[in-house]
Amino acid sequence: MDNIKEKAMKLHEEMKGKMSIKGKISMDFENLPLLYTPGVAEPCLEIEKNPERAYDLTWKWNSVAVISDGSRVLGLGDIGPKASMPLLEGKAMIFSKFGKIDAVPIAISQMSVDDTVKVIKSIQHGFGGINLEDISIPRCFDILERLIAELDIPVWHDDQQGTATIIVSALLNAMEVTNRKLSNANIVLMGAGAANSSVYRLLRYAGVEAEQFKVFDKDGLLGSHRNDLTKISVLKKICDETNPNGNKMEIANGFKNADVVIALSKPGPGVVKPEWIKSMNKGPIVFACANPTPEIDPRLAKEAGAVVVATGRSDYPNQVNNALVFPGMFRGALDVRAKGISWGMAWAVAKEIANIAKEKGLSPDYIVPRIDEKMLHERVAKAASAAAIDKTFS
Amino acid sequence: MDNIKEKAMKLHEEMKGKMSIKGKISMDFENLPLLYTPGVAEPCLEIEKNPERAYDLTWKWNSVAVISDGSRVLGLGDIGPKASMPLLEGKAMIFSKFGKIDAVPIAISQMSVDDTVKVIKSIQHGFGGINLEDISIPRCFDILERLIAELDIPVWHDDQQGTATIIVSALLNAMEVTNRKLSNANIVLMGAGAANSSVYRLLRYAGVEAEQFKVFDKDGLLGSHRNDLTKISVLKKICDETNPNGNKMEIANGFKNADVVIALSKPGPGVVKPEWIKSMNKGPIVFACANPTPEIDPRLAKEAGAVVVATGRSDYPNQVNNALVFPGMFRGALDVRAKGISWGMAWAVAKEIANIAKEKGLSPDYIVPRIDEKMLHERVAKAASAAAIDKTFS
Repeated sequence: MDNIKEKAMKLHEEMKGKMSIKGKISMDFENLPLLYTPGVAEPCLEIEKNPERAYDLTWKWNSVAVISDGSRVLGLGDIGPKASMPLLEGKAMIFSKFGKIDAVPIAISQMSVDDTVKVIKSIQHGFGGINLEDISIPRCFDILERLIAELDIPVWHDDQQGTATIIVSALLNAMEVTNRKLSNANIVLMGAGAANSSVYRLLRYAGVEAEQFKVFDKDGLLGSHRNDLTKISVLKKICDETNPNGNKMEIANGFKNADVVIALSKPGPGVVKPEWIKSMNKGPIVFACANPTPEIDPRLAKEAGAVVVATGRSDYPNQVNNALVFPGMFRGALDVRAKGISWGMAWAVAKEIANIAKEKGLSPDYIVPRIDEKMLHERVAKAASAAAIDKTFS
Repeated sequence: MDNIKEKAMKLHEEMKGKMSIKGKISMDFENLPLLYTPGVAEPCLEIEKNPERAYDLTWKWNSVAVISDGSRVLGLGDIGPKASMPLLEGKAMIFSKFGKIDAVPIAISQMSVDDTVKVIKSIQHGFGGINLEDISIPRCFDILERLIAELDIPVWHDDQQGTATIIVSALLNAMEVTNRKLSNANIVLMGAGAANSSVYRLLRYAGVEAEQFKVFDKDGLLGSHRNDLTKISVLKKICDETNPNGNKMEIANGFKNADVVIALSKPGPGVVKPEWIKSMNKGPIVFACANPTPEIDPRLAKEAGAVVVATGRSDYPNQVNNALVFPGMFRGALDVRAKGISWGMAWAVAKEIANIAKEKGLSPDYIVPRIDEKMLHERVAKAASAAAIDKTFS
């Protein structure tokens, strides 16, 4: 890890910014009156007449703004917009490399929901999509919902839908490896932030019943008794659906007889105890996805009986990495000019990524493909395009 | 012209966006943990500790946001943000080609001064500079002044300072060609918008006295009697300085005994009459810079006695083109991390561009260099850097 830190700093200092932006052809003296005044007036007027033509005459068909206010970056917390830029640039590189997308990193000030929506809405015009990133809860819920409702280009919060998509994809193969079915698995969600609340929503979209879930945050089991969550509609819904009677429960008890634990909570180690895993159903599935340190060391989880363990890290098997999803998801959405990205698209992509791993042969240590798996992003894009029928991400 | 229109549309349709944005190195599996999680956390934390380090670790040192709300685009008027994108992309190409700058076109909604300032302020963090473009008057005056005051990166409104810089540069050589001195020339400014109000300010910075000016807008001579302009502080100042007694005058009379006319008003032909030019001092200088059609046809102006004629067009001699200024100006400002772009920098650049033309040999038809003149932009950058001492663009 120290080695990575040192290497990362060195590489960032050498690169002085990860992206570069250039004209597609040379702006020589002959092209100048065509690409700038006076010729450029023509495409301007054409778009004024018919705004859809922006997709033919500007980079809108292929551009995504990658936006964060730095209020909850990685496991680092609130480091502010300026400090989020290296991450946004890294994300933009991944968009470019794997999605062939012109992605623009934009760090914005930390503001109220209203102001954040206003700012993003007012800078959307030239872009074909918006990727939100590392915005703190609960603001991120309302910001996303409002932007989806108010913009006519796809808006995606990667820490919500992106994480959910890759988690669910990995879960599908973990179920396969352990001979389980989604329809009767007992699922514990540990952590009820941007990621797990979306895991819940996507699994519900996929047909999992509310009764199959136990959802915990740092204050205990979610349920109708949780007055602290009534104002956060996404969580309120989870409270009412999964625990309408308002039962209280220790997390240790929540693990008992669970088939699956998906921890997206706080960096470990030691956040998940081995004895809890021992109390789960036989051959359980444990996703410990906190970054940079999983909630429990994967080796300890295995020793405690977990058959399939996934983390967010590339140096353990089964890395659940959003980067498998977002480049292809946006590629697919842009290709068909989807007005939004639906749960249906997320579900289709989750299944397709699971299939790609399955084709290579699943094992407890191989449930998700690597990011550079051949044709991965192209297949994700196709799956997303094909599913892009409606706009129901709400 | 029709040929240009047709060619321009064809080229825009082929290119589908003029810019592309890419990672500087390949984001392969080995680089991923360095440029993205977990390694990227290091530069993030470093910038959180010391925000200045953003200039070493992100593209901030070299990036400029090119922003318009489409409220006054070229000679086209209010065509809206979406339709301004081809122009913004063209500008970004010029920044890239001639300034080696990563320029990001961003079209924003049309909003009040307060909201425009708020939006631009809130998206500034990742950029090293802001280039405003084609924002209507009088909003553009307050927007620029406030952003200059409130941001700690250079903010420039190309239609104000950029146009003024190249006009004044050309004027210096026109004076030379006609054996005049700035210190005793009678100058008529026709049009008192973003451009000419800045021409006035830059010439005043350069030592020209207020009494040497007559400034006209569509409602007549500016002066202390102009109650319609009292709320626009930039114009109010011109009124009070140039015509404190509030004299009224027809524009035709304004031309009498003038040495120089700088028209930045409305597209011609016929806006400036040949007989007005005939009433000017012997061998006068006429800049007719409306786009796409000059206020008077350059041939008619010459027939009426003008010795030096300049326009905004590339198909006539003496094109005064902002693109000679802004790539080098920002390059120079970025190179020394100037906190702003001062009148002093504009004046230094105006003189340097004039020198470049002078070195090739001036004539009535050659007072400004071509945009692809060797070392032009490098010399502009050097002049700007050298003059970047204070921040007095207000």
